[in-house]
Amino acid sequence: MPGRNVLIVYAHQEPKSMNGSLKDIVVDVMSKQGCNVVVSDLYTMKFNAAATRNDITGDLCNPQHFSYGIETKEAFKKGCLCEDILEEQRKVHDADLVILQFPLYWFSFPAIMKGWIDRVFVQGFAFDFPGCYETGLLKGKKALLSFTTGGTEEMFSKEGASGDIRYLLWPIQHGIMHFCGFQVLSPQISYAPEYVSEVKRKEMLMNWAQRLENIWEEPPIDCTPPWYFQ
Amino acid sequence: MPGRNVLIVYAHQEPKSMNGSLKDIVVDVMSKQGCNVVVSDLYTMKFNAAATRNDITGDLCNPQHFSYGIETKEAFKKGCLCEDILEEQRKVHDADLVILQFPLYWFSFPAIMKGWIDRVFVQGFAFDFPGCYETGLLKGKKALLSFTTGGTEEMFSKEGASGDIRYLLWPIQHGIMHFCGFQVLSPQISYAPEYVSEVKRKEMLMNWAQRLENIWEEPPIDCTPPWYFQ
Repeated sequence: MPGRNVLIVYAHQEPKSMNGSLKDIVVDVMSKQGCNVVVSDLYTMKFNAAATRNDITGDLCNPQHFSYGIETKEAFKKGCLCEDILEEQRKVHDADLVILQFPLYWFSFPAIMKGWIDRVFVQGFAFDFPGCYETGLLKGKKALLSFTTGGTEEMFSKEGASGDIRYLLWPIQHGIMHFCGFQVLSPQISYAPEYVSEVKRKEMLMNWAQRLENIWEEPPIDCTPPWYFQ
Repeated sequence: MPGRNVLIVYAHQEPKSMNGSLKDIVVDVMSKQGCNVVVSDLYTMKFNAAATRNDITGDLCNPQHFSYGIETKEAFKKGCLCEDILEEQRKVHDADLVILQFPLYWFSFPAIMKGWIDRVFVQGFAFDFPGCYETGLLKGKKALLSFTTGGTEEMFSKEGASGDIRYLLWPIQHGIMHFCGFQVLSPQISYAPEYVSEVKRKEMLMNWAQRLENIWEEPPIDCTPPWYFQ
């Protein structure tokens, strides 16, 4: 879609990995659509994952009793967050669609990507009270999780050893994306690429490329409890 | 319990925080029991959260196509993991009970604690195939999540805006702890300490201290799907 902005937040160490290829496809397909595509390549950026007082430049409100949430909320208002957070916030602010591309680590994000969420989605920028869930401050934007797994699709089924994959997506899709007001699109799940044939891997990449052609028309999924677990 | 080893993995920036006090209580109560208590204070240690090739010392199996999972599995076998990982693995190996003490960030661990899991629970050390869930390599050890929330208990109820808190604990209790074979004890949840009275906060700390007196007798919870979501 010409003029639309896409942000890919990408967390894999190896450019030649399945995750690298899935990221490259977004850049390729969506650039051809006329979108402006920006990539935050977290490992290459050596993105700092830890939420510390270094994230605030200038004086703290209460240096004797440090609260990361309170201090970053105030620092956001005063323009006193550190530069790497501000830069990522500018990218999110400009984005119409945010794609998180990562390998599933322990039923969740790799820590470096969790750190991106912890540090960038500051109160006042991504949410507020009120200003969460339906009125989250990032409303109007779309978000999508694209990830690879170690386990097979059967393992991540309702009766599988790892349970329905939707269960483990709940904290991310509801607690992060929905909370900030994003319209959450269906996740793009590439199951166990390390254990399938080259043909199957190419098929996964082609499916992703095809889906991206019409991604702007997709309706969001419903992340509201309690239907989610039924 | 004299002679038992307790490891507290602690992730808060402020020693005077509720999390700091909850951690201090474990040290106090369990030392008095005669336990040997070790604390991994992740922010003070400046624990590295990112899973990179620096975690492997010596030659990689496949430097042309880096896979973190494959390389760390091999490095563990050969004793070629970097020192900070080895040190944490020794602590886990020795522990009879592992307590993770943290503030809930975005329905999950703070990134620095997720990084501890990502980097320390290497294949061959914490799990293998076979060697997961009931046969996880850390079987025989107990694990317990102790955390604070921003939201109230009502918000984290089944019909609350954030849904049943057990839902968001699923990826951690099942996908990490149960997967590695731990006996998972009930979580210790201190709801919204920033929004309650000083009296209420003291009550939370006292409850925790009391619970710790008999912690070795507690039966584990059942983390098996699909009952978990019913």
